[in-house]
Amino acid sequence: MANILIIGAGRSATSLIDYLLKKSGEFNWKITVADADKNLAEEKTAGHANAKAISFNINDAEKRREVIREHDLIISMLPAFMHGAVAKDCVEFGKHIATASYVSEEMKALDKEAKNKNILLLNECGLDPGIDHASAMKVIDEIKSKGGEISAFRSYCGGLVAPESNDNPWGYKFSWNPRNVVLAGQGTAQYLENGELKFIPYNRLFTQTNEIEIEGTGKFDAYANRDSIGYINEYGLASVKTMLRGTLRQHGYCKAWNVFVKLGLTDDTLKITNANKLTYGGLINSFLPNGSGSTKAKLKTFMGSGYDVEIEKMLEYLELFSDKKITVAEGSAAQLLQALLEEKWKLKPNDKDMIVMQHQFEYTLPGQTTLQKLNSSLVVIGKDDHHTAMALTVGLPLAITVKNFLTGKFKLYGVQIPTKKEIYLPLIKELEEHTIIFSEKIQD
Amino acid sequence: MANILIIGAGRSATSLIDYLLKKSGEFNWKITVADADKNLAEEKTAGHANAKAISFNINDAEKRREVIREHDLIISMLPAFMHGAVAKDCVEFGKHIATASYVSEEMKALDKEAKNKNILLLNECGLDPGIDHASAMKVIDEIKSKGGEISAFRSYCGGLVAPESNDNPWGYKFSWNPRNVVLAGQGTAQYLENGELKFIPYNRLFTQTNEIEIEGTGKFDAYANRDSIGYINEYGLASVKTMLRGTLRQHGYCKAWNVFVKLGLTDDTLKITNANKLTYGGLINSFLPNGSGSTKAKLKTFMGSGYDVEIEKMLEYLELFSDKKITVAEGSAAQLLQALLEEKWKLKPNDKDMIVMQHQFEYTLPGQTTLQKLNSSLVVIGKDDHHTAMALTVGLPLAITVKNFLTGKFKLYGVQIPTKKEIYLPLIKELEEHTIIFSEKIQD
Repeated sequence: MANILIIGAGRSATSLIDYLLKKSGEFNWKITVADADKNLAEEKTAGHANAKAISFNINDAEKRREVIREHDLIISMLPAFMHGAVAKDCVEFGKHIATASYVSEEMKALDKEAKNKNILLLNECGLDPGIDHASAMKVIDEIKSKGGEISAFRSYCGGLVAPESNDNPWGYKFSWNPRNVVLAGQGTAQYLENGELKFIPYNRLFTQTNEIEIEGTGKFDAYANRDSIGYINEYGLASVKTMLRGTLRQHGYCKAWNVFVKLGLTDDTLKITNANKLTYGGLINSFLPNGSGSTKAKLKTFMGSGYDVEIEKMLEYLELFSDKKITVAEGSAAQLLQALLEEKWKLKPNDKDMIVMQHQFEYTLPGQTTLQKLNSSLVVIGKDDHHTAMALTVGLPLAITVKNFLTGKFKLYGVQIPTKKEIYLPLIKELEEHTIIFSEKIQD
Repeated sequence: MANILIIGAGRSATSLIDYLLKKSGEFNWKITVADADKNLAEEKTAGHANAKAISFNINDAEKRREVIREHDLIISMLPAFMHGAVAKDCVEFGKHIATASYVSEEMKALDKEAKNKNILLLNECGLDPGIDHASAMKVIDEIKSKGGEISAFRSYCGGLVAPESNDNPWGYKFSWNPRNVVLAGQGTAQYLENGELKFIPYNRLFTQTNEIEIEGTGKFDAYANRDSIGYINEYGLASVKTMLRGTLRQHGYCKAWNVFVKLGLTDDTLKITNANKLTYGGLINSFLPNGSGSTKAKLKTFMGSGYDVEIEKMLEYLELFSDKKITVAEGSAAQLLQALLEEKWKLKPNDKDMIVMQHQFEYTLPGQTTLQKLNSSLVVIGKDDHHTAMALTVGLPLAITVKNFLTGKFKLYGVQIPTKKEIYLPLIKELEEHTIIFSEKIQD
């Protein structure tokens, strides 16, 4: 018997809520779904006997604390920066919390108190981070159990559009928060390569990419994620020489996105006033250095040798050289770009999205000198624009792991991510029942 | 009779405090100098009969409010982000406030209440911003009084090292907050050029520079300041076609600084742990893409056609290709770079710094068709590493303007910057008595 509170009932919470409602009879759970939009919460609970839908303002601390106090475990599907406040309340009142987001400094600071109180602070339990940790650790522990030593680990994941719904030259549509896609990678990425610490600043992130080919699925560009170094310890890979986590886009996307980075169109700091007096063509022109000829010609000169017809087509598809009016009254360049992309990269009702993940391991087995190479890959195709592969793979690991915790399958407290056997083994097993199945292949 | 509180007694407050102490007898002022470091506050008041030195924690709101309540006018020499809290207290208690910093959103939000209460919120009253506004407005108003129409305004300022103390290839030493110098320009700059809105993102800021020559002083590079557009209204230049404010560095500095930007060495977001296990040569190498040869050779290839021997010499001067150990245990790349620069670019005891400012006006007079060009320039040389031109030109305008306000020379309330005649005219006149004198020259 447990009272579960789910905060946030957006698209990415669909499979999570469905799963928990289905199991609620068996385990005697009462489930509250809360959202700022009460209709959305009601839509998701759909009159289920064990569920109720509520609505409250998450920033109203008193109300939030009152609601949290009535439950045993809180699942926060809020934007990542809002987890901290919820987690603080949870630890104070002795409630467990689960999220799909990266462990924040605020979360880390609650670890000790949570452990003392036997409170679980489950994080990074969605797709990426989430399924990536679980599936990587399964292979790592298997190699280790044979006495193998892992020298290189590379892991890539992308939320993309399925080939059958891919009808734009970018090979991309939004199945996830558009703002995060536009701002992706700002800052500096760090990873380990052949024993050397490597940094890539944002201004070069989309030029220093790897090309990945996944059999039967296609070619992809991979750019480095923010911090790969921190996972060397988390994964127990102390002697690894190469450690890289990256994000996948369709092959060709990164060189075109680099135009935006070089122009400055992904800047989110300067507010452009009266933006709705500008056109997208005018905006591009304002970001270009002085030169002669059309905006298109100036851009070609500006970008230099890497620029090609393919990139130009991708920009034309977005009407970036046109008199198309900007409709945002005031916003950063990133916000103006986002508004355009949300129009151009929208999933249509029957469009299917696609999740692609691949781990690449290099290791040696005891008594052998040849380097072994193993790839572990996952491809998940969504059903339509609402039942997306993204929503499934983000929500399900969280739901399954919460179920496993509440039913005593593991007893771990404080900050946890799905890297421990007692968490990842039953998780991976159950994901397979939902056709989220990795295929492993020895490489020649 | 007035009680004046000066918060912050660092180097940049020296001339401000000296000036106000000198005038304190004549105007019956009691002056309190507050600093987190009581010794510093005592050093600056030096037992003056009208002064006292105090020390308190600015983040202790109760104590801060208690101190503010005992005074009539507060001069905040704190870092800019801290003015907001002080200003809020000031407006609540009916106290005036004066700063040398840019008008913040927090300050703007207090404007209406301050006007209602006849409270002055004086800002941008140092060097740049400050003297630049006052001296530009003097010329602008003079041209306007002749019926002239200004079509272009460019204004440049730099805090540099004097030629006689310039003994490093960068032509630069710190006379100001090193952190601000290292992080300068992050975000996107906007200005107006020939009627077109122009943006320059940080990744290209140090490549799209102007070359400026100031007679008898030398050649300089100018890079664009964050926001030049906002000053079109402030300066009353509605019909201007070119509006640019920029920062000066010695000619050659910007192309070398661009190496840091392109490498990613000015990133302040990623914390590098165990940095003290690295060398500066190793750090550069970690930021370089893979390649062959020495770090120096790889950097040359990486930078491409703009790279030359002069830049290499500047980097060598900083020991950036060497095994010099990093001493900072943990910090962003920007912090590691700053630590090195603070060592290399330190003013020696007898070093003199130099302030250079130049406004360039283009205008037409009524009934004439030829474009008039006028430059108004200022050069100030410091005395030594403590009595810097920087401290003089930042502190004096603030001190003089506070004096002019307290003695009734102007009666303006709410947010003010020194663009109005009643503020800038007496200010410029008195600055001239302190040998801060602009020379105007018609250009051919």
